[in-house]
Amino acid sequence: MEKIKVGILGATGSVGQKFISLLSDHPVFEIHELAASERSAGKVYKNAMKWILDAELNENIGKKIIKKAGEKLESRVLFSALDSGVAGELETYYAKNGHAVISNARNHRTDPDVPLIIPEVNPEHLEMIKYQKYGEGFIVTNPNCSTIGAVLALKPLHDKFGIKKLNIVTMQAMSGAGYPGLSSMDIFDNVVPYISGEEDKIETEPNKIFGKLSENGIIEHENIKISAQCNRVNVIDGHLETIQVTFDKKVEKVQIIEAWHDFESIPYKEGCYSAPKNPIRYFHEDNYPQPRIHRNLGNGMTVSTGRLRECKFFDYKFVVLSHNTVRGAAGGTILIAELLEKNGIIK
Amino acid sequence: MEKIKVGILGATGSVGQKFISLLSDHPVFEIHELAASERSAGKVYKNAMKWILDAELNENIGKKIIKKAGEKLESRVLFSALDSGVAGELETYYAKNGHAVISNARNHRTDPDVPLIIPEVNPEHLEMIKYQKYGEGFIVTNPNCSTIGAVLALKPLHDKFGIKKLNIVTMQAMSGAGYPGLSSMDIFDNVVPYISGEEDKIETEPNKIFGKLSENGIIEHENIKISAQCNRVNVIDGHLETIQVTFDKKVEKVQIIEAWHDFESIPYKEGCYSAPKNPIRYFHEDNYPQPRIHRNLGNGMTVSTGRLRECKFFDYKFVVLSHNTVRGAAGGTILIAELLEKNGIIK
Amino acid sequence: MEKIKVGILGATGSVGQKFISLLSDHPVFEIHELAASERSAGKVYKNAMKWILDAELNENIGKKIIKKAGEKLESRVLFSALDSGVAGELETYYAKNGHAVISNARNHRTDPDVPLIIPEVNPEHLEMIKYQKYGEGFIVTNPNCSTIGAVLALKPLHDKFGIKKLNIVTMQAMSGAGYPGLSSMDIFDNVVPYISGEEDKIETEPNKIFGKLSENGIIEHENIKISAQCNRVNVIDGHLETIQVTFDKKVEKVQIIEAWHDFESIPYKEGCYSAPKNPIRYFHEDNYPQPRIHRNLGNGMTVSTGRLRECKFFDYKFVVLSHNTVRGAAGGTILIAELLEKNGIIK
Amino acid sequence: MEKIKVGILGATGSVGQKFISLLSDHPVFEIHELAASERSAGKVYKNAMKWILDAELNENIGKKIIKKAGEKLESRVLFSALDSGVAGELETYYAKNGHAVISNARNHRTDPDVPLIIPEVNPEHLEMIKYQKYGEGFIVTNPNCSTIGAVLALKPLHDKFGIKKLNIVTMQAMSGAGYPGLSSMDIFDNVVPYISGEEDKIETEPNKIFGKLSENGIIEHENIKISAQCNRVNVIDGHLETIQVTFDKKVEKVQIIEAWHDFESIPYKEGCYSAPKNPIRYFHEDNYPQPRIHRNLGNGMTVSTGRLRECKFFDYKFVVLSHNTVRGAAGGTILIAELLEKNGIIK
Repeated sequence: MEKIKVGILGATGSVGQKFISLLSDHPVFEIHELAASERSAGKVYKNAMKWILDAELNENIGKKIIKKAGEKLESRVLFSALDSGVAGELETYYAKNGHAVISNARNHRTDPDVPLIIPEVNPEHLEMIKYQKYGEGFIVTNPNCSTIGAVLALKPLHDKFGIKKLNIVTMQAMSGAGYPGLSSMDIFDNVVPYISGEEDKIETEPNKIFGKLSENGIIEHENIKISAQCNRVNVIDGHLETIQVTFDKKVEKVQIIEAWHDFESIPYKEGCYSAPKNPIRYFHEDNYPQPRIHRNLGNGMTVSTGRLRECKFFDYKFVVLSHNTVRGAAGGTILIAELLEKNGIIK
Repeated sequence: MEKIKVGILGATGSVGQKFISLLSDHPVFEIHELAASERSAGKVYKNAMKWILDAELNENIGKKIIKKAGEKLESRVLFSALDSGVAGELETYYAKNGHAVISNARNHRTDPDVPLIIPEVNPEHLEMIKYQKYGEGFIVTNPNCSTIGAVLALKPLHDKFGIKKLNIVTMQAMSGAGYPGLSSMDIFDNVVPYISGEEDKIETEPNKIFGKLSENGIIEHENIKISAQCNRVNVIDGHLETIQVTFDKKVEKVQIIEAWHDFESIPYKEGCYSAPKNPIRYFHEDNYPQPRIHRNLGNGMTVSTGRLRECKFFDYKFVVLSHNTVRGAAGGTILIAELLEKNGIIK
Repeated sequence: MEKIKVGILGATGSVGQKFISLLSDHPVFEIHELAASERSAGKVYKNAMKWILDAELNENIGKKIIKKAGEKLESRVLFSALDSGVAGELETYYAKNGHAVISNARNHRTDPDVPLIIPEVNPEHLEMIKYQKYGEGFIVTNPNCSTIGAVLALKPLHDKFGIKKLNIVTMQAMSGAGYPGLSSMDIFDNVVPYISGEEDKIETEPNKIFGKLSENGIIEHENIKISAQCNRVNVIDGHLETIQVTFDKKVEKVQIIEAWHDFESIPYKEGCYSAPKNPIRYFHEDNYPQPRIHRNLGNGMTVSTGRLRECKFFDYKFVVLSHNTVRGAAGGTILIAELLEKNGIIK
Repeated sequence: MEKIKVGILGATGSVGQKFISLLSDHPVFEIHELAASERSAGKVYKNAMKWILDAELNENIGKKIIKKAGEKLESRVLFSALDSGVAGELETYYAKNGHAVISNARNHRTDPDVPLIIPEVNPEHLEMIKYQKYGEGFIVTNPNCSTIGAVLALKPLHDKFGIKKLNIVTMQAMSGAGYPGLSSMDIFDNVVPYISGEEDKIETEPNKIFGKLSENGIIEHENIKISAQCNRVNVIDGHLETIQVTFDKKVEKVQIIEAWHDFESIPYKEGCYSAPKNPIRYFHEDNYPQPRIHRNLGNGMTVSTGRLRECKFFDYKFVVLSHNTVRGAAGGTILIAELLEKNGIIK
C-alpha cells in the first residue's frame, strides 16, 4: 500500500520538528514536503533550523529543500505547525486550494465551521468538514495542549454523569512555550503563575469539543462552567493539572475509576496507528501520576489520572497528566489525520 | 542591654540550621545552647551536621558542644526545630521545666491550650499562654509553612470582608521537605502531586488561627470551608499558592488591593526586629509574584500576592507566594519570640 | 528458538530496574528470576520497590516473587546489579555454583582472572574465562560508567596511534549515584566537584581494558598515564567528559575523525542485538554533543564525540558523551552477555 | 562626606541591573544617571526593562529617566555594562569627553594602554591610566568572569612559586550568558560544552593581568601557557573551574594552602568597601566548594578553592569557585572604582 504524502507547514519550529519526528517512520503517512517562512525557504532542512529533540532527525528528511509557506504545495494533506501570527491566512489559503489542513495552531479553532477534535472525544464532529466553504479542501484543528489532557480524562465522566462545573489549576511544562520559549533565567528555580491566553482557551474550548453537532453542521456548545488558573513550572515535558468537578448526578468514586477503566477508544477500535488501547490510565498510588515518570505512557498518547477524592466545593477532585507536545500537539494532530484516513476522508 | 539567651532544640536539621543562621546576629536573642539527638550530643556543632545553607555558619556557634535534647538546659527560651517523632514529649518536658518553648513542630499545634501564632494575624492569642498547665513554662507554635503564607495574605480580607470559602492549590518548594528530603531523582524535571499530611493542615489550621479567644483562654474556631491540593515542584525555596476565596460581603477588586496595602502590622508597630513594615505586597504585573524573584522580599518575611481577578465559582482568585523556610518556618517562629519579648512575656 | 533464561541480582535498585526494562522484550534473553536482599525477598516485585524509570514496568515481571540473593537460583545466566557491599561474595558464590555472572558491580573488576569488558573494545579478553577457578561458572565485569564512554571513544585511536597520556574531567549525571542517590538539596542549582572513588577507577580501569592477554590468561596492563577529575552536575542521564590525549605518533585531526568514522564493531558484526552499527559518532557542530539531546543515540548505546581540536599540553582535546545507565551500566552489561551468547559461551 | 555621582551605561541589561543593585546603597558612590540604547532612552527605568534580580530595585532609581548612551552625561564616573556591539566606540567617546570609564565589556581589554584589573591582583596597573590618550578621561576594564576567579586564586601562588602552565576546565553558570541568555530548552537537564569566545579569553587575559608594567606604561605580558575548555551547566550563579597548574619551583601542598590563607588584599587594607578581608578561602572538605553553597561568601566577592592534590601531568590540581555576576562582573568592576577613589584618581 502506498503511503499518503503529507506536507508540514511551519516545519522548522518545535512543533514542526515533533511532526517530523513522529511522521518519519509512520505506516500511513509519508513526509513529502516541508514548508516554512521566507527566512528558511530554499534551504536544506537540516541547515535551516536548530534540531532540539532527542530523537534524531531522519537523514532523508534532513536533506529536503524547504518550500515557502504560502506557495503552491503538492501534498493533499498538510499538517500545520504554523505560528499563530500567520496560520490564519495561510491555512485558509491552503484549504481553499484543495488541501486537507490539520492544524495545531489556534487561529481557526473558534471558527463555527471548523471542528476542534480530540479523536477519542468527538470524532463525530469531523462531519462538520462537509459543511465547510473550502470546496475540496478543509480545516480541522487540534485543541490547546492543556485542554486536551483535561477533556480526554473528562470524556467518559461527561458521557456517564454529565459535567456541570470544572475548576482547573495547571502546572505546565516549558516545552509548551515552543523554542526558544522561556529564558532559562525566567523558569529555573521558579514557577511563573501566568501563561498568556491559556486560561481563556481552557475555559472555552471544552464546551465546543463536548458540543452537539446539529443537522446543519453547526456545533451547539455545551455549557459547562469552567475556571482555569495556569502556571509554568520547571519541567521539560508533561502538563499536570488539578481538576475539581461537579456532575449532574450523584456519583460514587468507584464509578469514576470504572468509567476511566472501561472507556473505549474509537480511534483504537478503528485501528489508528497512534491510538493507545487505553487512552486513560488511573493510578491508585497517592503520589502519581508524575510528569517525568508517566508522560511517555502509550508513546506519549495516554493521559494519566490519579488522586481521585471527594471535594468540599465540587463533587470530586483529581489530577491529570498528559504529554503536551505529543498528545497535546503533534501526536494528537496526527491521530486526527489517522482517523480521517480510516474514514476515507483523506486518502 | 543584655541579649536574651536562647537554646535551639533540633539544632542539626535544616530548620535548626535556619534558626542558627537567623539568630547569629540578632539584636535581642543570643544563641546560648544547641541541643539535638543522642547521635549528635557531645559533638562540636560544626562537625556534627552537614551545613546546607548558603549563609555561612557563625564560627563561634560552630564551636559549641551540642547538648542532648531531653536533658536540662539553661536558657529560658527554647526554639524547637525538633522532628515530629520526638517533639511532642520533649516540648512538654521543657515547658513543664519552666521554659518558653516556641516551636516549629506540628505536634502541639492542635492542643486546645496552645496558641498557633502568626504574629501579624493573631497576636492576641498569646493570651492563651496564661491558661496553660505548664507553670512558668509554656508552648507556642508556628503554623504549617503553606498555611502561613495563605493566612497572612487573607488576614486583612477576613477582617474586612469575612471569608467563607477557600480553595487552595499549592506548588511547594523542595526545602519544605527538610534535608535530605526528596531524592534528586524524584523531583528533578518533575512535579509530585502529593505531600503527606499537608492538605489536612491547610484545611484546619486557618480556622484555629482566625478563631476568637474566649474568656477562659479557649479558642472558638472560625468555620471557613477550605479545600487544599498540594504539589511539590522543582524550586528550592518559596511556596506559591493559587487561592480562590468567597467573602461574606460583596467586595470590589480595588478594596482587596487596598486592604492589602493598608494592612498594619502589630509586630512592626511594636518594633519587632524581623517584622517587615509591609508584610503583604501586591504585584500588578500579570506574571508576578514568582518564587525566585520575590521570595526574599522583606528578608524573606514579606508575603507577595498577585493576579487578583474575579472567579466563576468563588468571588475572587489570586496567587500568594511566601518563603517557606523563613516566613514559613524559622523566621516566623523567631518573630513570635520577638513579639513575646516586646510584650514582656519573655525577658 | 527458545530464549535463554536469566536472573537479575539486585533487581530492586536503579540498575536492577534498568536491567529489567532493557530485558523485558529482548530477543535472546528472558527474565526468569529476580533476586534481592532479605528485605525484599518473598515479595511481589512491583510492591517491593519504587519503580523510577519512565519506561513502564512489564506487567508479568512485576508479578514475579523476588528470591533472596544468596540462595539457589535456576538461571544459568545472572546479571548482577548488586550493591558493592555484598556483590563480591555473592557473585563468587554464584560463579562457584556454575552460573555465568555478568556484573555491573565494581568488586571483581580488578581480579586478575576476571575480564573487564567493553564488547567493542576488548572482546578477546573473554578468553580469560577459561582460566577462571569457578568450574562451569564464571564472572565477567562491566567497567565504571565514566570509563566506558571514554575508553570506547579512545579505542580506535589507541589501535591506530597509541595513547600515552589522558587528562580527563567529567561532568556526570545524577542517575549515576543510584536511587535515592543525591538529595535534591545537594545537586539542584549546583555542581559537586567530587565523586567518591570515581577518579581512581577512571585512572586504572582503562589500562586493564586496553591490556594484552598473555597465554596464561593473564592481562598485561597497558601503561597509559591518566589523570581524572570528577564532577556531578544537575543532569538526569548522560556523562559528559572533556578529554585531552597524547599519542605515540604525530596524528592529523582528520585522521582521528576518520578513525572514529571507520571504527568497526565486532559485536555489531556478530549480530548482537544491542550493538549499534556505529558505536562512535563525531559531531562537527561547535556545541555538540549534549546530554539531553544525544544521550539516547543508538538506543543509548552510541558514544558521541565532538569539539576535537589541538591542545597546548597534549596532542588533542575533545569531549565525549555517553549514557551512563545504558551504555555505562545495564546496556553495556547486556551487550557482554549477547557477545557471550554469539560465541557459544552461554546458551 | 558627599558621595561621588556615577552613571551606568547599559543600565537595562543583566549586568546593568547588578550594578544598580550593588550601588543602590553604596557608601562612596551614588547613582546619578542611567543610560541605555535608543530603545529605552526617555523612559522611566522601572518601565523600560524587566528586572530579573531577587534583590529589589531601589524605588528612587526605578523612577529615573533613562538617558541615551552616546549623549552627554554629567557624572565623572561611568560604569559600563554596555553590549560589546557598541561598547568599544561609546566607551572611547566618554573617555575622550573626560569621563572615568570603568568597564565590564570586553572591547578595550586588549588595548595596550588600557589596564585589565583585578584589584587584589594587579592594582599597580592602574598607573597605565596616566599614559592613556584620553586627556582627563580614561578607561579601565574588568576581565572575563572565568578569568577573574582563576587568576585571583592563582595570584598568591604566582607571586611565591611562579606559574608556568595552566590547564583549565570550566563549568559556568547560566547568568553568565546575560538575559535572556540561554533558552530553557537548551540548558535544562543539559551541559553545553562550548561558550563562544570564552576559551580564548581565559587563555590570554591572565598573561596581561600578571604582566609587568614597564616605565612607559606598557605591560610586558607574562608568558604562562594556558589551555581552557569551557562548559555551560544548569546552575544560576557561580562558575566552578578545575585547574591544573605547574610552577617554576617545587612546592609542597601545605605551602599552597598557606599562600592562600596568608594572602593580603591591598583593596581591603586600603579600606575599599566591597573588598572581603580574605578574598581566597580554601575548603578542606572533599566535596567543596559548591556553587549553591559558597558563591555568596564575602557577599559574592570571595573566591573559594578546594580539592588541592598532586597531579600526574602538572604539579597540582584543584577547583576554584567564584560568583560570576558579582566578583566576576559588576562587583569586581565596582571594587576597581573603590580602589581608584582610595587612590585619589576619582573623586
